[in-house]
Amino acid sequence: MTEHVIELTKQLIEQKSISPDDKDCQTIIINRLKALNFTIETLNYNQTKNLWAYHGEGETIMFAGHTDVVPAGDENKWLYPPYQATIDNEGNLYGRGAADMKSGVAAMICAAEDFIKQNPNHKGRIAFLLTSDEEADATDGTIKVVEELIKRQEKIDYCIVGEPSSDKTIGDQIKNGRRGSITANLVVHGIQGHVAYPHLADNPVHRFAPALNELISTVWDNGNQYFPPTSMQIANINGGTGAENVIPGDLSVQFNFRYSSELTDEIIKQRVEQILQKYNLSYSLRWRLSGQPFLTKQGILTNTAQKVIKNRLDIDSKLSTSGGTSDGRFIAKMGCQVIELGVINATIHKVNEHVNCDQIIILKDIYQRIISELLA
Amino acid sequence: MTEHVIELTKQLIEQKSISPDDKDCQTIIINRLKALNFTIETLNYNQTKNLWAYHGEGETIMFAGHTDVVPAGDENKWLYPPYQATIDNEGNLYGRGAADMKSGVAAMICAAEDFIKQNPNHKGRIAFLLTSDEEADATDGTIKVVEELIKRQEKIDYCIVGEPSSDKTIGDQIKNGRRGSITANLVVHGIQGHVAYPHLADNPVHRFAPALNELISTVWDNGNQYFPPTSMQIANINGGTGAENVIPGDLSVQFNFRYSSELTDEIIKQRVEQILQKYNLSYSLRWRLSGQPFLTKQGILTNTAQKVIKNRLDIDSKLSTSGGTSDGRFIAKMGCQVIELGVINATIHKVNEHVNCDQIIILKDIYQRIISELLA
Ligand SMILES: [Zn+2]
Ligand SMILES: [Zn+2]
Repeated sequence: MTEHVIELTKQLIEQKSISPDDKDCQTIIINRLKALNFTIETLNYNQTKNLWAYHGEGETIMFAGHTDVVPAGDENKWLYPPYQATIDNEGNLYGRGAADMKSGVAAMICAAEDFIKQNPNHKGRIAFLLTSDEEADATDGTIKVVEELIKRQEKIDYCIVGEPSSDKTIGDQIKNGRRGSITANLVVHGIQGHVAYPHLADNPVHRFAPALNELISTVWDNGNQYFPPTSMQIANINGGTGAENVIPGDLSVQFNFRYSSELTDEIIKQRVEQILQKYNLSYSLRWRLSGQPFLTKQGILTNTAQKVIKNRLDIDSKLSTSGGTSDGRFIAKMGCQVIELGVINATIHKVNEHVNCDQIIILKDIYQRIISELLA
Repeated sequence: MTEHVIELTKQLIEQKSISPDDKDCQTIIINRLKALNFTIETLNYNQTKNLWAYHGEGETIMFAGHTDVVPAGDENKWLYPPYQATIDNEGNLYGRGAADMKSGVAAMICAAEDFIKQNPNHKGRIAFLLTSDEEADATDGTIKVVEELIKRQEKIDYCIVGEPSSDKTIGDQIKNGRRGSITANLVVHGIQGHVAYPHLADNPVHRFAPALNELISTVWDNGNQYFPPTSMQIANINGGTGAENVIPGDLSVQFNFRYSSELTDEIIKQRVEQILQKYNLSYSLRWRLSGQPFLTKQGILTNTAQKVIKNRLDIDSKLSTSGGTSDGRFIAKMGCQVIELGVINATIHKVNEHVNCDQIIILKDIYQRIISELLA
């Protein structure tokens, strides 16, 4: 007998739901939640499908996740077709979204099913927030639903985002926050000219070199109890016409900060501008803030999750704020405790993305036990 | 009565001879040289037309030049159609190639015509080397003809390249050499990754920053009597996938040296590699040598040109080695004295390229007087 959570994961992988196309993922889920008497609402914006659903009332534990996936890349490099959900001899389930995060979505749905079947009159409320736009722009997904829920004064107490948070073994790591992310789009202005007549030109690459050096060698902070030190990375740098005899007129540099709660976006902006001004650069600078840092301090939700994992797997789950941004940053605005807890993230966004079936079954079990602890 | 040199310049401008297409420029010239009993030879390679022609024998003064032009750019920005050869109220002749260098070619042809008509039995030899491939690759043009002439042991004593050498007024500047030009194509290797996990990546922009700083602040030499200091310019720098959350795997940097006779290409290569190795970079480096520096020291040719200009215009013509490369670098290999002497270069390669008709007439006159001084 195959577990229902594996069957559901496979069904979802077979939907080729590349952002923001949900295909039929949410329809499959809605049918299952309807059978449990969930109150169901679709909140669609442009191409994005969002699902808000709940069961019960009072203290609320919400599961959040996304049904969309990134493209499969070169399909010829896959051991098995990426939208076919194949299980190999060792029980590894292959397919795009196997880890990020169709197994997580299946686990949260099946955990709720099993819990409600055993506790039809549970206290409190179980809720779901699913979106088909997390991997791409994320502009019409969770952020919009959260805005709407805040407008309605919906209160959420605990939120588990089912993103693949685990590192080496299932449950070894819980994300209890994420660093902030802000990107600088800098254009250093010079004067274009011929390399043979440098005195008539002003090379923006030469101008920028010492400032680049300082940006790269700056220690922005040392992190804190919850966050690693802030990291700055040059993502793109482009200057030149392509011709080998032309001094470029402009230099474009895009750099991204992943920053701890020791800094704010305002402090970062100020310190970068100070460096640019110190070297007397002529420049244009545009900032894009993709997420303020958020943090759920050690408390009821992290304690419960860690206790359940200890009981189920006899391992100590580590709290971490490393890694990329997630929709947790939007949900945190509702004032609830938010963690991310899911399968191992080793193969996400890669060719041959896969997850072991045992992990999925364990994850479902952990979710169900957390619900029990908090609501039963 | 319009001067014949103006008429010929106009005729040549009306040939839309974008490199390496000569259109009928050389045919027009051949017909005129035939009338003077020149020995004429066409030496064509691939798409490139080359003309080698001479009259007389013995000590040889060769005029060199090109019939091709760079494209007109945005024709809507031109005051007059670029291939129509229009003279405005102030006597400015507009058209692509007006300055670079159809006026120069017309001036050398008409100077020879007038000289030979007055001196049908002149001593020595007047020669022409024209090509339709100077502005583009220059691989099938002068370099090939020079190879052929060297093979034949043709001896040239003096060469005047009719490139636009003048700065503010006609004749104020003679080029008696050119700097060398060598380009480095550098790829700094790193490890691509996600900006959220910088410890798993190796950012080649960060790696390269201190080396860039040193390359830019290095004094390569201080020049000498004939050459300005060697100049290094970053022409192109490109790194990044375009995504703001990806650390680039590679960084490409292209930089060009214009170098004096104090350095050689070998010394430059060595010093650059030393800097790259000092910063422990993993890199690939490919060099392209476009021209060794060449120099014609003060001597018979420069003295004659300066004397003629002083007599004709009462100005002191300055010797200079600044500016870009020219076919003079190939001709210098024949062991002759080489100068570049032509009209004002202010508008070359630009929209609204033009030259004043008076300049063209004066240039023809200067060429004719130099021939007289050297051969009459
Ligand atoms: Zn995800
Ligand atoms: Zn030219």
